Amino acid sequence: MPRGNMLIAQSGGPSAVINQSLVGAVMEAKKHADVGKIYGARHGIMGILGEDFIDLRKETSATLENVAATPSSALGSVRQKPTADDCKAMFEIMRRYNVRYFFYIGGNDSAETAHIVNEESERQGVELRCFHIPKTIDNDLRANDHTPGFGSAAKFVALALMGIDLDNRALPGVHISVVMGRNAGFLTAASALARTRPDDGPHLIYLPERAFSSAAFVRDVNAVYKRLGRCVVAVSEGIHDAKGVPMIAKFTNEQDSHGNVQLSGTGALGDLLVAEIKAKTKIKRVRSDTFGYLQRSFPTVVSEIDAREARRVGEEAVRTAIDKNIDGSIAIVRKPGARYGVSFECVPLKNVARDTHEMPASFINKKGNDVTAAFVRYAAPIVGPLPKLTRLKSVSAARIAVG
Amino acid sequence: MPRGNMLIAQSGGPSAVINQSLVGAVMEAKKHADVGKIYGARHGIMGILGEDFIDLRKETSATLENVAATPSSALGSVRQKPTADDCKAMFEIMRRYNVRYFFYIGGNDSAETAHIVNEESERQGVELRCFHIPKTIDNDLRANDHTPGFGSAAKFVALALMGIDLDNRALPGVHISVVMGRNAGFLTAASALARTRPDDGPHLIYLPERAFSSAAFVRDVNAVYKRLGRCVVAVSEGIHDAKGVPMIAKFTNEQDSHGNVQLSGTGALGDLLVAEIKAKTKIKRVRSDTFGYLQRSFPTVVSEIDAREARRVGEEAVRTAIDKNIDGSIAIVRKPGARYGVSFECVPLKNVARDTHEMPASFINKKGNDVTAAFVRYAAPIVGPLPKLTRLKSVSAARIAVG
Repeated sequence: MPRGNMLIAQSGGPSAVINQSLVGAVMEAKKHADVGKIYGARHGIMGILGEDFIDLRKETSATLENVAATPSSALGSVRQKPTADDCKAMFEIMRRYNVRYFFYIGGNDSAETAHIVNEESERQGVELRCFHIPKTIDNDLRANDHTPGFGSAAKFVALALMGIDLDNRALPGVHISVVMGRNAGFLTAASALARTRPDDGPHLIYLPERAFSSAAFVRDVNAVYKRLGRCVVAVSEGIHDAKGVPMIAKFTNEQDSHGNVQLSGTGALGDLLVAEIKAKTKIKRVRSDTFGYLQRSFPTVVSEIDAREARRVGEEAVRTAIDKNIDGSIAIVRKPGARYGVSFECVPLKNVARDTHEMPASFINKKGNDVTAAFVRYAAPIVGPLPKLTRLKSVSAARIAVG
Repeated sequence: MPRGNMLIAQSGGPSAVINQSLVGAVMEAKKHADVGKIYGARHGIMGILGEDFIDLRKETSATLENVAATPSSALGSVRQKPTADDCKAMFEIMRRYNVRYFFYIGGNDSAETAHIVNEESERQGVELRCFHIPKTIDNDLRANDHTPGFGSAAKFVALALMGIDLDNRALPGVHISVVMGRNAGFLTAASALARTRPDDGPHLIYLPERAFSSAAFVRDVNAVYKRLGRCVVAVSEGIHDAKGVPMIAKFTNEQDSHGNVQLSGTGALGDLLVAEIKAKTKIKRVRSDTFGYLQRSFPTVVSEIDAREARRVGEEAVRTAIDKNIDGSIAIVRKPGARYGVSFECVPLKNVARDTHEMPASFINKKGNDVTAAFVRYAAPIVGPLPKLTRLKSVSAARIAVG
């Protein structure tokens, strides 16, 4: 491969470990004599089009390591789909800056951007290696067993539900947690990792992979409340009715350029579900929390496995692009067997771009209101160890009769 | 003091360290020969009235230590103000169970309960030592420099804002965080600890100690947005208009038996503020997160100082009640001087019961949209060290001209 410069950028929603991928890519690039300058574009393709580049060789290794451990996209992010004209403009800029290697860190929309750039570069005869580096807390990238960012966000969700379940035990009622994840239920499902005993919450989990019925929801909550005197629920922000209309769509019509409806940044869905329970049952204490942006960039809540894998996909993308002179994305593939292990494999961009995948049926219970043991086995090693919380043994004191 | 049994219970909102106080009290009680049985009542005075007692001497030290490190009220909690009849019924039960020492862990409402029980016991000639043990994330107990539970909740808020500010840097817009605290702004003010550089958020902080004006809010946000291209806001759930009507009161009328309006468990206030910014400015990306119950019982987010002090107030309450044979509450008093230090002092129940205190004027800036350096000096040692997050040095790359 001819010597040339490298350009890297971040796109889509931030995560707790997306900077591990950035730093992994930069540290790897430094080992290769074929790589000249290492440009970072600010705010994804917006920064490329605006020639808003920083010189990543000017960052010390110490700074890079500290940035790797810092949540949210250090280069800034964007949600923007490039047009053919954008690509033409970017190629002119890349030619001028002698960019031969292009890396784009993000989810399915970012993979689509990398795919578009790659296809256009081939069509226009531009010599460019295009790589997508996976990141999404939604865990919905095709070709991947799981994605960098998911493990840490899932750890946040599991910890949150551990705390909320204890809180709800202390002051019983119904509590509804609204969790991110768009059309994939993985992150909401991770709330199940909060459970260690049979009566631990969440007692009900609603995922976008199943049509949401308000009537069934009210019935389910009432049944749990009758049995336990309380009920903790985890609900995906992406739940929708039988026609596929997101419940949240009743409140918003904001969309990004990839056509995604804005699901986060509002408590409306939680409040709607609270109102439903209050209207249809006699339960008085009904509360909702929407985890919002906390779950994707909360400092100190990081899965170690997730951080390591995020670093590796960055390294592998650069190594593969340079050594093999090909385009693609790095996918995390799970090794079979009881012991957790993964391999990192190069897959074509079209295999991860745009379309997403959802939870397999084997991870969802028949009633569509909980996950299965198979899901817990799948997710637990990605999240890593959780704190052991303890309850009192609570030996009832001997009653002392009147008299 | 005559030998007798001890009864302890928890009340009001849970916290991350309320079990430290419970365990501190139990471990201390075990050292005193005057204490016979150690009863824990489930769900505060509700458990006393229902004789729902557990035998805390049956818990091993290992269990107690693990429970101390577990968030939320291990005995269960309640929000209930006792009537004179309730007191009479409780005294009959306490007489039967030979209870001579009564400890109630909680905030101002719980102190009011302890105060009522104490006054009634004196009026009815019941021999009972009544102690309140302080706990509230709101940090609004009178006679206290600060309260157990605040430091850990404040740490959550500071960490959350660190993450949200980085997230907002990556995808710029307006972000509004709604924080607990009722009529006291301390917890919302703690968001200021997230700042280490001049352009770090939160850029605006609105507290219930100042009347909230929607017009001033919109002006403030617009000004920050013009300067930085983004704006991160922290708002207390208890903000109210110039007439003292809580902004959230437009959405709810739920009250507890102490007369408190329900402020938490809904995203309505955040959504209202988002709608206001969207309607009155041209800013497109406007989001809100309501921290809700996450901030008071999130496992792993604990201030060590807070945990130690919570343990101490439990120990001191038991020691004082038994050794001095008096009633009261244990207050945390700050020692003067630059180096952080506190003493634990016994104060009369009436000094902490019912009425709360607010942020002093010296902690709030003149415009009423931020805190002062004095607040940061006050709060930082209570919260303890926060992680050092790092940004790229971001040296702009040399522009390469067309040609």
